[in-house]
Amino acid sequence: MYGRTYYCGEVTEENIGESITLKGWVQKRRDLGGLIFIDLRDRTGIVQAVFNPDGSKEALEIAEKVRNEYVLDIKGKVVAREEGTVNTNLMTGKIEVVVSEITIINEAKTPPFVLSDDKEVSEELRLKYRYLDLRRPMMFETLKMRHQVTKAFRTFLDDEGFLDIETPILTKSTPEGARDYLVPSRVHPGEFYALPQSPQIFKQMLMVSGFDKYYQIARCFRDEDLRADRQPEFTQIDIETSFMSQEDIIAMVERMMGKLMKDVKGAEIPEAFPRLSYDEAMGRYGSDKPDTRFEMELKDVSEAVKESGFKVFAGAVASGGQVKALNVKSAADKYSRKDIDALTEFTSRYGAKGLAWLKVEEEGLKGPISKFFPEDEAAKLTALLDAQPGDLLLFVADKKSVVADALGALRLKLGKELGLIDESKFNFLWVTDWPLLEYDEEAGRYFAAHHPFTMPVREDLGLLDSAPGEARAQAYDLVLNGYELGGGSLRIFERDIQEKMFEVLGFTPEQAKEQFGFLLDAFEYGTPPHGGIALGLDRIVMLLAGRTNLRDTIAFPKTASASCLLTNAPGKVSEDQLDELHLGLKTEAVES
Amino acid sequence: MYGRTYYCGEVTEENIGESITLKGWVQKRRDLGGLIFIDLRDRTGIVQAVFNPDGSKEALEIAEKVRNEYVLDIKGKVVAREEGTVNTNLMTGKIEVVVSEITIINEAKTPPFVLSDDKEVSEELRLKYRYLDLRRPMMFETLKMRHQVTKAFRTFLDDEGFLDIETPILTKSTPEGARDYLVPSRVHPGEFYALPQSPQIFKQMLMVSGFDKYYQIARCFRDEDLRADRQPEFTQIDIETSFMSQEDIIAMVERMMGKLMKDVKGAEIPEAFPRLSYDEAMGRYGSDKPDTRFEMELKDVSEAVKESGFKVFAGAVASGGQVKALNVKSAADKYSRKDIDALTEFTSRYGAKGLAWLKVEEEGLKGPISKFFPEDEAAKLTALLDAQPGDLLLFVADKKSVVADALGALRLKLGKELGLIDESKFNFLWVTDWPLLEYDEEAGRYFAAHHPFTMPVREDLGLLDSAPGEARAQAYDLVLNGYELGGGSLRIFERDIQEKMFEVLGFTPEQAKEQFGFLLDAFEYGTPPHGGIALGLDRIVMLLAGRTNLRDTIAFPKTASASCLLTNAPGKVSEDQLDELHLGLKTEAVES
Repeated sequence: MYGRTYYCGEVTEENIGESITLKGWVQKRRDLGGLIFIDLRDRTGIVQAVFNPDGSKEALEIAEKVRNEYVLDIKGKVVAREEGTVNTNLMTGKIEVVVSEITIINEAKTPPFVLSDDKEVSEELRLKYRYLDLRRPMMFETLKMRHQVTKAFRTFLDDEGFLDIETPILTKSTPEGARDYLVPSRVHPGEFYALPQSPQIFKQMLMVSGFDKYYQIARCFRDEDLRADRQPEFTQIDIETSFMSQEDIIAMVERMMGKLMKDVKGAEIPEAFPRLSYDEAMGRYGSDKPDTRFEMELKDVSEAVKESGFKVFAGAVASGGQVKALNVKSAADKYSRKDIDALTEFTSRYGAKGLAWLKVEEEGLKGPISKFFPEDEAAKLTALLDAQPGDLLLFVADKKSVVADALGALRLKLGKELGLIDESKFNFLWVTDWPLLEYDEEAGRYFAAHHPFTMPVREDLGLLDSAPGEARAQAYDLVLNGYELGGGSLRIFERDIQEKMFEVLGFTPEQAKEQFGFLLDAFEYGTPPHGGIALGLDRIVMLLAGRTNLRDTIAFPKTASASCLLTNAPGKVSEDQLDELHLGLKTEAVES
Repeated sequence: MYGRTYYCGEVTEENIGESITLKGWVQKRRDLGGLIFIDLRDRTGIVQAVFNPDGSKEALEIAEKVRNEYVLDIKGKVVAREEGTVNTNLMTGKIEVVVSEITIINEAKTPPFVLSDDKEVSEELRLKYRYLDLRRPMMFETLKMRHQVTKAFRTFLDDEGFLDIETPILTKSTPEGARDYLVPSRVHPGEFYALPQSPQIFKQMLMVSGFDKYYQIARCFRDEDLRADRQPEFTQIDIETSFMSQEDIIAMVERMMGKLMKDVKGAEIPEAFPRLSYDEAMGRYGSDKPDTRFEMELKDVSEAVKESGFKVFAGAVASGGQVKALNVKSAADKYSRKDIDALTEFTSRYGAKGLAWLKVEEEGLKGPISKFFPEDEAAKLTALLDAQPGDLLLFVADKKSVVADALGALRLKLGKELGLIDESKFNFLWVTDWPLLEYDEEAGRYFAAHHPFTMPVREDLGLLDSAPGEARAQAYDLVLNGYELGGGSLRIFERDIQEKMFEVLGFTPEQAKEQFGFLLDAFEYGTPPHGGIALGLDRIVMLLAGRTNLRDTIAFPKTASASCLLTNAPGKVSEDQLDELHLGLKTEAVES
């Protein structure tokens, strides 16, 4: 039964005359009465097998019993297709295999959904029967691309002298960041491991050890409420280096992404990526991960409207906020009042109290607030916004963060709606000069904007005491087409700075020691300057494969409620198992 | 401060005259008064830096403050060493760097142990300060070899068309096999994920999907009581293929190991490995993973002694057991009665009730039981055992399994003691024809010898009803130098056989459905014949690196009680965290 001579998709005219053995699945069967065609499929493609009485009567009889998705072993002879029956859509379309022998290796029930890319199937069904969903060419191609992506990264990093080092999955629960998945210990009653949110501490330890260049394609875990583009376990390309500057690391990642794009997409990208400071990104795009594939930047009109008769604008500026606008080019006719009401509703989700608008016409500005802009003020505004007749101007007046969030989101929505985005573009860019800390009003304290190990800009160290919120981080995010691919930073490598950082984050010295004592200790034994980056593999594959659903990039993903519909994980366990772990359930859900 | 021009170990005579910048750690400092030598180290090696007043007085002053393990940035000029000061032990021994500028990047306390390979350090101390332990060249070289090993595997498998696919770490608890690590779910009260003991089910699902060739360097988990060569998390090279026979898979793995040995050790190994059936391995070596680097095989003397006057021998044979012997060549003089008493004690640990012995002398057999062997019987025995004067003959008479265990262990012990093992050899071999099932007296049922998905030999399928213990598996283990590197098998791919297997293992149909319903279902949608293998990466690295401690192959391993001494994992968690997981502790150890 064994002994495949070719994959289905690899049989070509060069094989004409050969006797071959194929193994695969029945993609389609056509019974013309005494003549049967079977499209046989494997991961490489499809080949047409012909059963006719001239070939083998026995085979023909067996072929009559065959149904879609049966697993077959066929032997036969490769012949050229007759003129007029050539299928130019198939790599193998110029030949067919006249079958002399067929074995049904395994039968198949009718799949619960059609295994083709162009049918919409509920994701629930796809995940429950993932083994069938993965037969769809699109899923195979996406996972194959994932393989190519990791291979490109590995090859680059191997060639650059990085060592692939595995770090533990069973590790210690740490505060800060997202919620940990916990693993009870059987041997140590009442104690727990945590699954790592990243190998951060371990990669820093490797730098202390002098490994100099580390990488890992690392599985990471976050027990968070999931959004469409989050999974409880995800994979990152985790990189750390010693003695390299931020510029060194950025240049290295640029070379790496260049190789990735070349190997996987056959695309050339610029050697150096554009850079935006965090402030500039927020100011011009209302986002810390701007999609620069289209323009339509946010323009600050605060100065021009601060004395406007429109009190909403003047009031916002007077109270320390700002007024910003989008000029939606040539869109005045495309958006009715009703449409603009919908946009207003949309921006309200981002906290905007309103969305003011003006349409530019030959005669001047039109719209409910046009009366507040007499001719000279209108001229100032149109000049500032480079507005032409036919343009639609949209304004949000609020505090800075609301203006950025609302207009940033609106910009993306309009870009998509109006087809302004060139989907063939891959716009990589760096966002730099991040704030080190973010103040959380609710918690009443600062949190690390990246993580507590990020090195402050040296000249801002003094601010940690006087004005922590103003301190900048030596951090850099890599952005592609409006998605954050990952973030990196130089790390703190001096005990006193790390202690100060923990203090600013509200740790008592005892808590810092309890949680990170070994890290603080390590800094005292000759720690080199170090830094790195972590890039989200799932997201990179999603963007390169042109997918919009992160789950399509993962062979066996979980749902938004962190369930695996294939295996029904998580599931109940026995009382014995819980006893061994010294655990009891605080819930009515207890059953074994 | 940035801008390393060379790694320390890479500065050679070719750089003489160059001004260079180095970064590294102080390996050693010698202060000769007005002249200081510093051996600067990084991961590539060591270079000698010289500080003298001709170079820079300022640098000399700073160098006086430097201590071991300080992190330095030095700039200087490469010069040839003077005749007589060349160090042939160093790659860089013909040159030195006359320093013009030095920056102390970071200071270092005196490490708690000497960072050199030739000092014995308690493993507890090494693990607590793992970041220092990893500075030792032996540790760096071992982890570097680990990188090379995974790279060799990946390159081979990539080239053979295998796709690297990640499978979930958060998955479902399954019975059979070892104990699972469990992960409580916050979203699903009372439910748990399990960490995978292997990606077995998922890789089989990928075959159902038509992926054809899958691999993964996969992290696996077992909550078992740990032995010296076990870790709670370990890594395997996990491989699965469709439509390949056992012979195809074996040949592919042989090519893979050939590439591994060539790439990593520069060694040529035979294209095809020797094979032993399970029965032959147990019979000749008393082990299912025989070390064939030396002979001293177990010889069955049951026939020759079954009518012996020595009732222990005759009785063992009469009651269905056997008598086997080792001929320890030329060892009669090396083992005193006391030594043999120690060997007897050793074999008793394996259940042997005694260890009979005879020394072969010119005049005949000597020893306490020699009187039972009159001249013709003695001749029969010496002929059978190919015994010469000077040989020591050791006998165990017991039931078959005890004889194998005791003499198998004794053979290994003697092989080591007598220096019979050629440590330069890499003896790969296959053990095949495994039993499918093992009967557990205590549990009163059969367990899968490999796992419940292993395909029985087709002609033995009938035995599953009549005599399950006699059914053979289509399974194969790869053995190297007495260690099991891994095991593989063809898998069941038909629902009825899998159901029968679960039945033999004591599952009710309901239990089978509850645990593995999705697998049974999958078999009905066109599952191809498939099989694979999983190889233990940690153990392969250990053997190739010539280490004896599995922990030396892992950057951050756990102790025998599954603790991480560096981070103090596992650890306590807060009441809030437990509440979120709907858990309570059934122990006095509760503290937050």
